Amino acid sequence: MIKGAIKLLDELFRPAALAVIGASEKAGKVGRVVLENILNSGYRGTVYPVNPSYGEVFSLKCYPSVSDLPEAPELAMIIIPAESVQGVIEECGARGVKAAVIISAGFKESGVEGYRRETVLRQTAERLGIEVLGPNCLGIADTSTPLNATFATSSPLPGRVAFMSQSGALGTAMLGWSEENHLGFSRFISLGNKMDLNESDMLEALEHDVNTSVIAAYLEGISEGERFLEVTARVSRSKPVIIYKAGVTQAGARAVSSHTGTLAGSENAYAAAFRKSGALRANRVEDLFMLAQGFSAQPPPAGPRVCVITNAGGPGIVASDALEHAGLSLAVLTEETTQHLNEKLPEAASVYNPVDVLGDAGADRYRLAMESVIADPGVDAVMIVLTPQAMTRATETARVVADCAGGSEKTVFAVFMGGSEISDAEDIMREVGIPNFRFPEEAVDTLRCMKAYTDFLSRPRRTMVRFDVEKHKVDEVFSTTREQGRNELVEVEAREVLLAYGLPVARTMLATNLEECIKAGREIGYPVVVKIASPQILHKTDVGGVIVGIENTDELITAYEKVTANARKFFPRADIWGVLVQEMLPPSRELIVGMNRDSQFGPLLMTGLGGIYVEVLKDVSFRLAPVSEEEVMDMLRELKSYWLLQGARGEPPADIDAVVESVLRVSQLVTDFPEINELDINPLRVLEDGKGCLAADARIVLEE
Amino acid sequence: MIKGAIKLLDELFRPAALAVIGASEKAGKVGRVVLENILNSGYRGTVYPVNPSYGEVFSLKCYPSVSDLPEAPELAMIIIPAESVQGVIEECGARGVKAAVIISAGFKESGVEGYRRETVLRQTAERLGIEVLGPNCLGIADTSTPLNATFATSSPLPGRVAFMSQSGALGTAMLGWSEENHLGFSRFISLGNKMDLNESDMLEALEHDVNTSVIAAYLEGISEGERFLEVTARVSRSKPVIIYKAGVTQAGARAVSSHTGTLAGSENAYAAAFRKSGALRANRVEDLFMLAQGFSAQPPPAGPRVCVITNAGGPGIVASDALEHAGLSLAVLTEETTQHLNEKLPEAASVYNPVDVLGDAGADRYRLAMESVIADPGVDAVMIVLTPQAMTRATETARVVADCAGGSEKTVFAVFMGGSEISDAEDIMREVGIPNFRFPEEAVDTLRCMKAYTDFLSRPRRTMVRFDVEKHKVDEVFSTTREQGRNELVEVEAREVLLAYGLPVARTMLATNLEECIKAGREIGYPVVVKIASPQILHKTDVGGVIVGIENTDELITAYEKVTANARKFFPRADIWGVLVQEMLPPSRELIVGMNRDSQFGPLLMTGLGGIYVEVLKDVSFRLAPVSEEEVMDMLRELKSYWLLQGARGEPPADIDAVVESVLRVSQLVTDFPEINELDINPLRVLEDGKGCLAADARIVLEE
Repeated sequence: MIKGAIKLLDELFRPAALAVIGASEKAGKVGRVVLENILNSGYRGTVYPVNPSYGEVFSLKCYPSVSDLPEAPELAMIIIPAESVQGVIEECGARGVKAAVIISAGFKESGVEGYRRETVLRQTAERLGIEVLGPNCLGIADTSTPLNATFATSSPLPGRVAFMSQSGALGTAMLGWSEENHLGFSRFISLGNKMDLNESDMLEALEHDVNTSVIAAYLEGISEGERFLEVTARVSRSKPVIIYKAGVTQAGARAVSSHTGTLAGSENAYAAAFRKSGALRANRVEDLFMLAQGFSAQPPPAGPRVCVITNAGGPGIVASDALEHAGLSLAVLTEETTQHLNEKLPEAASVYNPVDVLGDAGADRYRLAMESVIADPGVDAVMIVLTPQAMTRATETARVVADCAGGSEKTVFAVFMGGSEISDAEDIMREVGIPNFRFPEEAVDTLRCMKAYTDFLSRPRRTMVRFDVEKHKVDEVFSTTREQGRNELVEVEAREVLLAYGLPVARTMLATNLEECIKAGREIGYPVVVKIASPQILHKTDVGGVIVGIENTDELITAYEKVTANARKFFPRADIWGVLVQEMLPPSRELIVGMNRDSQFGPLLMTGLGGIYVEVLKDVSFRLAPVSEEEVMDMLRELKSYWLLQGARGEPPADIDAVVESVLRVSQLVTDFPEINELDINPLRVLEDGKGCLAADARIVLEE
Repeated sequence: MIKGAIKLLDELFRPAALAVIGASEKAGKVGRVVLENILNSGYRGTVYPVNPSYGEVFSLKCYPSVSDLPEAPELAMIIIPAESVQGVIEECGARGVKAAVIISAGFKESGVEGYRRETVLRQTAERLGIEVLGPNCLGIADTSTPLNATFATSSPLPGRVAFMSQSGALGTAMLGWSEENHLGFSRFISLGNKMDLNESDMLEALEHDVNTSVIAAYLEGISEGERFLEVTARVSRSKPVIIYKAGVTQAGARAVSSHTGTLAGSENAYAAAFRKSGALRANRVEDLFMLAQGFSAQPPPAGPRVCVITNAGGPGIVASDALEHAGLSLAVLTEETTQHLNEKLPEAASVYNPVDVLGDAGADRYRLAMESVIADPGVDAVMIVLTPQAMTRATETARVVADCAGGSEKTVFAVFMGGSEISDAEDIMREVGIPNFRFPEEAVDTLRCMKAYTDFLSRPRRTMVRFDVEKHKVDEVFSTTREQGRNELVEVEAREVLLAYGLPVARTMLATNLEECIKAGREIGYPVVVKIASPQILHKTDVGGVIVGIENTDELITAYEKVTANARKFFPRADIWGVLVQEMLPPSRELIVGMNRDSQFGPLLMTGLGGIYVEVLKDVSFRLAPVSEEEVMDMLRELKSYWLLQGARGEPPADIDAVVESVLRVSQLVTDFPEINELDINPLRVLEDGKGCLAADARIVLEE
């Protein structure tokens, strides 16, 4: 079903008329609460109660059925037993209703029968062209229409935050919490079972809502992963999208066999999805609101440089620690600022950041400090910390803060600490959009996340490279594999696939006897390396199982005999498969490059330190394909072992450009072929800068 | 000065008489606020205002000086200009005052002159035998005496939490916060500059205070690191000690040259100190209070198994996620419990954990669920989650929670979410000691930390091993090093030190020419390994720079020539020092074992994955020496690479016992010799189980 974003908004949030199907006056009935909330919310449209049991509800004419209504209402609120919903939806369709909010429970969430009921209902609604929110939801509210069509006990205050929740109960709790904390909403949406309309539809609708400047969401699952990524990335460009994702710790269901698959997990896929889409992640439910408050009140900081003004040392240290942990920085004030502060503040004051205006500071000293600091070009955000001391005038200082912050483009947060003695001050500052945090850490957490949004906005649009590749060759390999009833490629097939996508592959041959060994040497070309091939012998060099720099057949014969003899001596019980003959590579570092296809978000790429340490040290990073060059560089920089690539301990730097190109080619490969479920290149041997890199071993698994 | 803990308590917190030096009626004067607070707090002892300017203050006779007082008060509160404090302390000494709280600022915190002033004052107080709290502090309070001798604007509510703060301002803010959140204190202590009495003194005093059951502290620095560890470890056995340590991100000042020194840092030293002493770490200022609230209200959970009872799915998922992240677990309910719940709860309810009593649950369903879950032997703690829905009766449910939790030895936390609609419920539960958290994550964080305290209490007393060692040999080596004007040992000296402490050392000799090489082979004994020795060649095996299994002189000569030739070929510009001749070791894994002496807490031991990856991958763990066998095992288990030691990918397990013994011997060495500043054994080559381990390279740096 194609959904028109603007139209959706009108039908759901601004209906000219709505029907309340299941309206009632009976105490304790949800149908009563919804109707009361609608009537009390100041809704200016027409309300049609529908219930065959009553002639009148709350002095409004009550209709026996939707068919009896004098006009087709845009929206139907449905609050009747689950088993009757199907019939009512059909009536709605016949009467020309375009949107419905189904509050009734008893569907997918309640077992097999409910699941079946929902399936039938979805098909019906689709056929009739009715857009459905729910079922099993709390309703919707819009504070600008105004309309509160929920059965929540608290009403949303007006504001600029749109909040959607997949849990109705959590939604109610949050309404109560936000009322107490004076956070206002533009819209409140309870998603329920997401039978039809889901988070992506709502994001699209909210993108164009002039009353919404921040979007916050509590989600348990994403309905359409790839669409969600696309929509969120677009919406995030104009409005911050803050998401608390519940249930992230649950592991994915599909069995995996690759290193990448083992390390990927749904948590890494989610993290990559958030990063890619620009969605801001709330780590705790409370953060949803901290962040919504921060974004709706203040501009995000242009940079990481924060100045702290405080009337006490302790909270200044706490704030500094928190800033450092959050990856923000204490702004270095200009000489002009410090000189000015030095002249005007008492001698014992600290004129560096944190600026300490001292325990006996009145509002005047705060003004002095704030004015110079806000004017300082080296400051992106200001945190005003106040602890109530003998001389402290919290309320007066709040007025000064409100005054100085007004019209500034810099982020200003207050941290007035304490109890009831600062609540008047909080009210004054809230009036002008300066949120107060009771603890420095909360302010810093919020700043950190707002700064992440600035970073997202300034992130360059990704430039995607496409390489000329031989796609048909990959098709051929996959066909052969399939024909043979396999879904895992053997090494030679994987090698062909990589070559078709321009990935350099190290020449390696397994020789199970001396004759094959000599042949391999000739084929690969000298110099070569010989390695013992045995599943039991991992530290081959320790037992004389590797000989390098073999220049000719004579040396090759000696080497073959030596490594097999050494292996038998040190590991008498090992299975010896033979030897590997490989082209001799100059000194190299080992990476892993891989992909695991996530069931929700698609191809999840991984880079990391390769070799046997992969799963032990987990020095890996993830992004969703397709990736840009910049994203690959970010992936590599996230690795602790990036230092090794740059040239640790006097080594020459490795060919990082070649690694980037390889990852881009893998990205193209797994994007072109959705049937690839898992891919591991391990190790990718990276040579010195300018000399390239080579896949020494690869695994590819197709979907079954 | 020897301090008697019990005596200290009496003088400071329960004085029979006290003098307020600097008492005043003048508005805005700190001396007035302190006196008023004392008089308003219900203090039953005698109060002597002292101030030469007044004959009477607040209807009390005011004395011109301490010398004029009719008796010697136990305690002097000093609130006069800094420059007059010295004289007053001398008078106090002459008059027989035993304890003083110096509120006056203008000492160490205010620059060079203040620093000098404090030094003289400290010497005077010491000479006169006066115990001093402060200077530059907010004062003290004791709610059982009762006495509030602070200049804070809020008064502490009575309770069982003792709180000390190194920041007076933060202390005041916290008093305000705790009043609003109904958290009660037994004592409130502002430490100020800690000229004399410090956190360790206060901990000793609080250990014996019958009114204190939880100790919380805000600290910026620890005055006597090793005493603090000892005192905290003792006090923690009877009362939880919760500490927020500010300023942890500051790096230590001393320049370091070892791997261990580079990786240690003050953060790791603090973490090790907390672990060793049993102190519980608050990561945010707010946590101090969450934890104090949790501990003062509820018993710590006996184990990690938590049962969640909820009336909505969403918050149940949030709680489950938080429990998993915190390392706690969802309790598996017994069949008896689930069967009972199955019979009594509606069909749609979930009878597994989280137990979902459904959105329409009244108080009765909560009672049913709580009673069975609390009785379940598989449950250590219960979290009662409630969101306000249409049928919810929060107040009634709170009574049920209070009723069911009464007398239970299990930890019971409430998470009633929402705003003002649940505040009556909160009051009811608070009365009976059930804290309510507004968000599941806060409850889980608190549980996690309380569980850590249970773990500390059940931690076996450490059994310390002492090995027979040749201490005098180490003395001799250090003397020689010192005589030669060095503080870093050369390799052969470090080797001798390790051998004297029974640490196995791999035999290695550097040969700068062929003659030396042959001599080394004979001395070490065949088979040997030859390795190229060049600072530029790190991946020796890649370039044919290592030859193993050399059985005789002929093979040794060939090997010498081959490795030097290979090195010249691949690295024409490298400095070639010669070759290392080393005894041939069987396959081994490489660890690092080291120590860096922390300026506050002493010898900080490190274990980790060795070799060139040490500083890149930072797979390391820390403990303060001396360590027990159990602590060393914990250190190793913390390593990601522990898996390698156990035998990853089919390898035989490594000799972990030998590693433990080596770390214990290093622990004894660095404890016996406080002059060792840094020590690195890297790599420690660990052979297969039963075959021991060998230090292949070692560095020791003495203090300068």
